[in-house]
Amino acid sequence: MTKLVSDPILHQGGVLGRVWEHLNRWPGIGPKSAERLLYYLLSTDKSEVLDFARALQELTERIHPCRQCHHWTEHELCSICSDPKRDSTLLCVVEQPRDVIALERCGVYRGHYHVLWGRLAPLEGIGPERLTVDSLLRRVQEGRVREVILATNPNFEGDGTALYLSSVLTPVGVKVTRLARGLPSGSTLEFANSAMLADALEGRRAL
Amino acid sequence: MTKLVSDPILHQGGVLGRVWEHLNRWPGIGPKSAERLLYYLLSTDKSEVLDFARALQELTERIHPCRQCHHWTEHELCSICSDPKRDSTLLCVVEQPRDVIALERCGVYRGHYHVLWGRLAPLEGIGPERLTVDSLLRRVQEGRVREVILATNPNFEGDGTALYLSSVLTPVGVKVTRLARGLPSGSTLEFANSAMLADALEGRRAL
Repeated sequence: MTKLVSDPILHQGGVLGRVWEHLNRWPGIGPKSAERLLYYLLSTDKSEVLDFARALQELTERIHPCRQCHHWTEHELCSICSDPKRDSTLLCVVEQPRDVIALERCGVYRGHYHVLWGRLAPLEGIGPERLTVDSLLRRVQEGRVREVILATNPNFEGDGTALYLSSVLTPVGVKVTRLARGLPSGSTLEFANSAMLADALEGRRAL
Repeated sequence: MTKLVSDPILHQGGVLGRVWEHLNRWPGIGPKSAERLLYYLLSTDKSEVLDFARALQELTERIHPCRQCHHWTEHELCSICSDPKRDSTLLCVVEQPRDVIALERCGVYRGHYHVLWGRLAPLEGIGPERLTVDSLLRRVQEGRVREVILATNPNFEGDGTALYLSSVLTPVGVKVTRLARGLPSGSTLEFANSAMLADALEGRRAL
């Protein structure tokens, strides 16, 4: 990386190097990919690059968390919260905005969401006050929600977070569920690890 | 891809979708990578994103081909052409700007460059007039260049281009060479294809 920056072309102390360094900082983009993208930007239509630059500026100015579910939006409420066709009595709690996209992509869920913006991690000092738990509790206390689906990640911290949320939500009198756990669809038993198999056995269902 | 665009979040008819669509158009960036990068941009420092947007704008305004070698630069001459420590009697001819970066990275070459901006491809109607051949000829005719190294790609079209350039440059009285061809350093004979082996045999050197 240091070697590339010392390249006389990308290190003309100018714009080429600056764009390259930005791209190089992006996740999953190494020095050579950054170079390839830089040359793509140089060779593509100028209006295209300018429009992208403007969109980035607007991204910083106009995007903020949705007042209700805390997902990103450029309005007061995001497109899901403001969609009258969605079932507002169903609330799916996720850790991150990207989890919403993943769930939307499967096309099965028609309820609302609540983005926690993280998970409980006591060892890192991340308690409920660092997440949007208060706001979740308020939404449930308003009384319109009949079921909260806890869709935190199926790992140690996600499970811990779900357990905690369940303990604060159940007293309010709402139904609290957790996403099913078992064998990933399309996989084979041969390659399933023991945790997956244990989950699959425990959660077995009558046919 | 169509499915992702119809995602209610990325398709709020707004900035999120616009940034995502731009990223999705970049080479090597698929819909899911574009999504990951979008969320990176949302979560990173705003000043960082704004600086990148400004750099992109400057890229479109200030970067143009170097008057002498036709590589990208933001000055009249690029950093290599204007470097007095580089040997201006040596000229390395490449197809694309990225080839310059590749050669610079190996750290061996200390001469100047000439970017053709393509290669001859008669079947696609790309003749010498579509490349920077005239400008190359003028540079050589000025008389200061003692050797032109043809570093077009070692493939059918690159070879054809080198052959053509050699035919127009040799009459001017300059030494014309071509990059060596043989086994890639670090490889094994076992996996070399027959073209590589034929090149290696033909170009064998006394030890």
